[in-house]
Amino acid sequence: MLSTPLSVDVSRIRPDIQQLQPQIVTWRRRLHQRPELGFREVLTAEFVSQQLQTWGIPHQTGIAKTGIVAKIVGTKAGKIGKVLAIRADMDALPIQELSDVIYRSQHEGVMHACGHDGHTAIALGTAYYLWQHRQDFGGTVKIIFQPAEEGPGGAKPMIEEGVLQNPDVDAIIGLHLWNNLPLGTVGVRSGTLMAAVESFKCKILGKGGHGAIPQQTIDAIVVSAQIVSALQTIVARNIDPLESAVVTVGKLHAGTANNIIADTAKLSGTVRYFNPKYAEYFRQRVEQIIAGICQSHGATYELDYWHLYPPVINNAEIAELIRSVAVEVVETPVGVVPECQTMGGEDMSFFLQQVPGCYFFLGSANPDKNLAYPHHHPRFDFDETALGMGVEMFVRCVEKFFN
Amino acid sequence: MLSTPLSVDVSRIRPDIQQLQPQIVTWRRRLHQRPELGFREVLTAEFVSQQLQTWGIPHQTGIAKTGIVAKIVGTKAGKIGKVLAIRADMDALPIQELSDVIYRSQHEGVMHACGHDGHTAIALGTAYYLWQHRQDFGGTVKIIFQPAEEGPGGAKPMIEEGVLQNPDVDAIIGLHLWNNLPLGTVGVRSGTLMAAVESFKCKILGKGGHGAIPQQTIDAIVVSAQIVSALQTIVARNIDPLESAVVTVGKLHAGTANNIIADTAKLSGTVRYFNPKYAEYFRQRVEQIIAGICQSHGATYELDYWHLYPPVINNAEIAELIRSVAVEVVETPVGVVPECQTMGGEDMSFFLQQVPGCYFFLGSANPDKNLAYPHHHPRFDFDETALGMGVEMFVRCVEKFFN
Amino acid sequence: MLSTPLSVDVSRIRPDIQQLQPQIVTWRRRLHQRPELGFREVLTAEFVSQQLQTWGIPHQTGIAKTGIVAKIVGTKAGKIGKVLAIRADMDALPIQELSDVIYRSQHEGVMHACGHDGHTAIALGTAYYLWQHRQDFGGTVKIIFQPAEEGPGGAKPMIEEGVLQNPDVDAIIGLHLWNNLPLGTVGVRSGTLMAAVESFKCKILGKGGHGAIPQQTIDAIVVSAQIVSALQTIVARNIDPLESAVVTVGKLHAGTANNIIADTAKLSGTVRYFNPKYAEYFRQRVEQIIAGICQSHGATYELDYWHLYPPVINNAEIAELIRSVAVEVVETPVGVVPECQTMGGEDMSFFLQQVPGCYFFLGSANPDKNLAYPHHHPRFDFDETALGMGVEMFVRCVEKFFN
Amino acid sequence: MLSTPLSVDVSRIRPDIQQLQPQIVTWRRRLHQRPELGFREVLTAEFVSQQLQTWGIPHQTGIAKTGIVAKIVGTKAGKIGKVLAIRADMDALPIQELSDVIYRSQHEGVMHACGHDGHTAIALGTAYYLWQHRQDFGGTVKIIFQPAEEGPGGAKPMIEEGVLQNPDVDAIIGLHLWNNLPLGTVGVRSGTLMAAVESFKCKILGKGGHGAIPQQTIDAIVVSAQIVSALQTIVARNIDPLESAVVTVGKLHAGTANNIIADTAKLSGTVRYFNPKYAEYFRQRVEQIIAGICQSHGATYELDYWHLYPPVINNAEIAELIRSVAVEVVETPVGVVPECQTMGGEDMSFFLQQVPGCYFFLGSANPDKNLAYPHHHPRFDFDETALGMGVEMFVRCVEKFFN
Repeated sequence: MLSTPLSVDVSRIRPDIQQLQPQIVTWRRRLHQRPELGFREVLTAEFVSQQLQTWGIPHQTGIAKTGIVAKIVGTKAGKIGKVLAIRADMDALPIQELSDVIYRSQHEGVMHACGHDGHTAIALGTAYYLWQHRQDFGGTVKIIFQPAEEGPGGAKPMIEEGVLQNPDVDAIIGLHLWNNLPLGTVGVRSGTLMAAVESFKCKILGKGGHGAIPQQTIDAIVVSAQIVSALQTIVARNIDPLESAVVTVGKLHAGTANNIIADTAKLSGTVRYFNPKYAEYFRQRVEQIIAGICQSHGATYELDYWHLYPPVINNAEIAELIRSVAVEVVETPVGVVPECQTMGGEDMSFFLQQVPGCYFFLGSANPDKNLAYPHHHPRFDFDETALGMGVEMFVRCVEKFFN
Repeated sequence: MLSTPLSVDVSRIRPDIQQLQPQIVTWRRRLHQRPELGFREVLTAEFVSQQLQTWGIPHQTGIAKTGIVAKIVGTKAGKIGKVLAIRADMDALPIQELSDVIYRSQHEGVMHACGHDGHTAIALGTAYYLWQHRQDFGGTVKIIFQPAEEGPGGAKPMIEEGVLQNPDVDAIIGLHLWNNLPLGTVGVRSGTLMAAVESFKCKILGKGGHGAIPQQTIDAIVVSAQIVSALQTIVARNIDPLESAVVTVGKLHAGTANNIIADTAKLSGTVRYFNPKYAEYFRQRVEQIIAGICQSHGATYELDYWHLYPPVINNAEIAELIRSVAVEVVETPVGVVPECQTMGGEDMSFFLQQVPGCYFFLGSANPDKNLAYPHHHPRFDFDETALGMGVEMFVRCVEKFFN
Repeated sequence: MLSTPLSVDVSRIRPDIQQLQPQIVTWRRRLHQRPELGFREVLTAEFVSQQLQTWGIPHQTGIAKTGIVAKIVGTKAGKIGKVLAIRADMDALPIQELSDVIYRSQHEGVMHACGHDGHTAIALGTAYYLWQHRQDFGGTVKIIFQPAEEGPGGAKPMIEEGVLQNPDVDAIIGLHLWNNLPLGTVGVRSGTLMAAVESFKCKILGKGGHGAIPQQTIDAIVVSAQIVSALQTIVARNIDPLESAVVTVGKLHAGTANNIIADTAKLSGTVRYFNPKYAEYFRQRVEQIIAGICQSHGATYELDYWHLYPPVINNAEIAELIRSVAVEVVETPVGVVPECQTMGGEDMSFFLQQVPGCYFFLGSANPDKNLAYPHHHPRFDFDETALGMGVEMFVRCVEKFFN
Repeated sequence: MLSTPLSVDVSRIRPDIQQLQPQIVTWRRRLHQRPELGFREVLTAEFVSQQLQTWGIPHQTGIAKTGIVAKIVGTKAGKIGKVLAIRADMDALPIQELSDVIYRSQHEGVMHACGHDGHTAIALGTAYYLWQHRQDFGGTVKIIFQPAEEGPGGAKPMIEEGVLQNPDVDAIIGLHLWNNLPLGTVGVRSGTLMAAVESFKCKILGKGGHGAIPQQTIDAIVVSAQIVSALQTIVARNIDPLESAVVTVGKLHAGTANNIIADTAKLSGTVRYFNPKYAEYFRQRVEQIIAGICQSHGATYELDYWHLYPPVINNAEIAELIRSVAVEVVETPVGVVPECQTMGGEDMSFFLQQVPGCYFFLGSANPDKNLAYPHHHPRFDFDETALGMGVEMFVRCVEKFFN
């Protein structure tokens, strides 16, 4: 994170949006109080739909269970026929909120610990503004309210149900409130922004027995230990050092008593990388290592491996569009952070595989207000000033895209 | 195990003991039905005490919670003043019995899966016979009914409460019904019979974090894997190959999610060896390996290490006494197995540290009757013919020891 | 490498330099025939000095043993007082050339297998041209002929002997003929281009002994094996996946007979990284791992660790200058490769630590002519067409820098 | 070793042999001065043959290159037709002697560092005595002078050339001067005395490359390190802890430069065990581990594995014969060491596979005279008093065997 908290200049946000700001905050807090897990965003979707309904914005609900698409057609002459999508995710996390804010989660064990409440509120604010000013742009804006970004992923089923068609989307943008950047900054880059996410679960099947009679057993713990060590060589030896990759074994559970040799060990892990050329590589390499070491010891294994999300890869032109907008919205040049990247993943990547687009980070940390906890932390919160900035970003992108 | 099941010749068992046999079986089955865990042998001790009471044998109860010592003074002129102890253990295991025998365990989740019910019954039979025939030997027999052999160990507290004193015990003997030997055999050896037992529990303290941000963490799973591999070198490189030793990590548990790097790993294991020269060695070596590898990675650790039981080391003369008795009781020479040893442990070892003595195995398997499951198996059972043989062994030992 | 060999357009090279081309080739081949190892570039330096002498270019020899600096003062009015340095390295490698070219190495076991002969020839050509046209630019050009780039490094001692002073150098440029890029391309980037290079040598001191008596030994091979495995975790777990790093153990030698346990093992390796924040990190981490694992097994160690070259980090403005020149010299945009980076190292980095500057790659591979072997290969050679392009690049940089 | 050096009582050696002692010492020293490696014992065999010739003992030379068999037929009535063989080995080691004794090796780099010079001298003394006293026993004694015990083994080819036939040998005995026991002791045991010896050599074939470009390579050092660690599990986990076994990797050589990834690693090692049931086990297990781990990393391997010598297993009856003789020759009971065993190997085992017999250790260390260096040490020497004791042992064995 940039070390100095900035005093943020909001004068670049247009008066209409500044005026809208308290309303957006209200929406966000309401959503924050009623967080819902992936594909169960029932109250959230109802709330979004009600707002759109109230304002008269045509929209479709129930896409990929709880997803919604709103469509706003600009009436100004211009690039009519062009379609820009804006994507916001709506789901929360299975975390018990520890903060004592007035708007804290009312759902036991569920929390908006990643800021999707903010994303949804920004999208609502954007929808409202664009609808009010639809005479100012030519073209169609689709606003996609997506479920289940935290997993198993709502983007893919929404695409499969046609959200990028009818009319066909020409480009897509989205943002993530980002506590790794201070309020008043925008992180945007062309090319790879976030990592591909894969995961695996493996059962090592040895042969159990008495802890004092190892010769009658195949010790699943000994086999697993060698596997964990060998897996380190994937990143250390097999991946181009100029590329980024992570192989983490997050869980290893084996055995029931100190004096019984474990028959089974269960490992599970996550894999991250940027370069799509590795799309099949890690699955093969992880399995090759497990298979070979099991064979070394006469053990067998069962491996489940999931390709969850591909990498988030931004289109150069749309990234440039966003950068050019950002320099108007945040203090320049310091406010625009060109080299931000993260090994975190996002299913925004599925949209970006289909149409050119750009995902960007909107700085939301404010250490002065103790709003700098990392994402997924039970005390996570962000500076709500970012909400209006998000709307301003999206609105300017729309205006620039169509004009 | 010797491969051929023997047709057992019981004609060497004296008629009085043959006649007692059905009674011993009854006692054993009654005990089998009401198994109790270590230091909770309340019903068992009550039953033993009642029998002794009925027969008029003086005894003391409540030693080390549930232990009992009976004292039978022979009235024959001879080596009066000599004291021989016979030890039997009484506790059961936290195992759910799976056999459908008529005398199966009535205590849910508790089972005599190691034959201690038989040991207690043999000791009762021996007590009864010796009491009836106390005019036939000169000397004192102490019969020790011990709790908690399976752990945490009743021998040590019984010794601390003085069971080997007043009058001072000159020698001690004991037996284990042994399904690794067929019925009709006796395993006896001078020197080390069973292993020292130690155990450890270790917490590896790393630093947890996001599975995609390893650089901010100290991965407790990676550290543990290296420790498990390095621990293999103790047996493989540090211990004299002419000596026997085992280091087993039986449990390894770490991590809560595939994509969160584990902050802590918990390992626990058991250590076995014969040679008392290694009494401090394994603790030092296990800690040295854990400490060094933790230091390699900036992790720390908490290690608990317990010296549970020392090795069971038989005295040469008493072992010879038992061997000479065994050749009379079982078919010779095939029935006497001189080289049996096991990496299993026994707290009989504490008695043998105090006074010369010998622990021996009494073959109890009978595959023809499907009575050959290993000890601690939920279908463990033994051939009850061995019960009378056990009494015969003990009685002859007493006679020979005093004459 | 870009896959398509380009038909190269040399029309962008000015006629004067095109005319000079055969002469530059002649110099290069003469140097190629008489390659000399680092700090022993006696014939090479003599040859360079003679040429400069012949042309009348003032220069100083014997800097850092065999280094030379030529000084060409432009006489045109303009930014007089500004000083630009051009750096070329002169040393060869201890490799036996396997190609059968007419100009192959005449020095047994020594070869220009990295193209420094070409670098020297380009620098000579540049010197000649600039001297002839010194009326066309205002400012001073220092041309630095450096020894021992392949190690142990001539840049640092040349700096210490003052080559960047009197007059003070304002900026420095240099190029590497690069067979990872095809002829007709220029690789240039702002920021980190090449890696920091560190190396280590470690002796693991165990205790030898008879192969059948491991308990009396500390097995240096077993200890080393664990160290090699643990070193993998530096890149896999400790380094930010967004950063680039390599830890290689290139040599491991231990033991003299299959049945004698090795008392000593010798490991040596190389370390590479880009980010200067890791300047002290790897030395500490390598030692921490070695120390911890040695301690685990009672072994000791002797570690030598060398920080050889820092990373090559280009100044943004000078990189932009070179990029802007490159787009004129090679076909654009395909010919300018902005994202090239390599984990290889270069002591050009020492110059770039002192003054702003930029090092760049000049594509020199031509698969059609079988000129595409990798650097340091015994059949390495490059397309000599690149020589004139190198002169054109330098000359235009000079002109642009001063004007 | 027993800690107290004994003052040895040689009064039990018969006067005739006591008188012979200086002569035996002379022979031994002469042999010591002219040590010869396996299958090149030309001078040694010539010397042995000359002595036998001089005395008139019939013998055959040139068996398995340099082996000799002498035949002495006793003329006393008795168990005529019975044949007892006595075996002595003759070869030396490729070690440069460091002691400065008057009889030190005159052959550069070759030394009798294992006492075979003594074995040959004892056999000569025994032959001389038995020949002089052939009227005192009925039966035939074959004295076998064997080459190449240190490897590759002369016993097997001598057997193949018929030394145990014509007339057929009924039993065989042999001894090893043993510096692990003090002078005045005899180590003898029934069953396994010395270990099976196997060895292996393995080439791990990876793919070499630049130390900074690991992704293009298969790092043979990383693969080997994992193999070395995994091999530890054979002894630690796969072998019955009640059995003895060693797996040592004595050599590991890989790589040529710190910054070049090794394409090949060469490992070699030795394997020891007692129990013949493991005759095929280690080869399979070593290969399984190497194969599995190579496969884990895409490497391949070439493995050579040799079963050198089987375990030395003594026959119970012959062992008892020797024990009964020993108690007469050395001070009893302390002088007879029943439980000696060693993980060292001996090709005496091949003879013992063919006919019942017993190999035993004759204590030869004398720390008071600084004669206690271990076998194969460049300062190895033994107390020559043992020579006469060896003859006495053999002669009494002959007398007892036939009578």
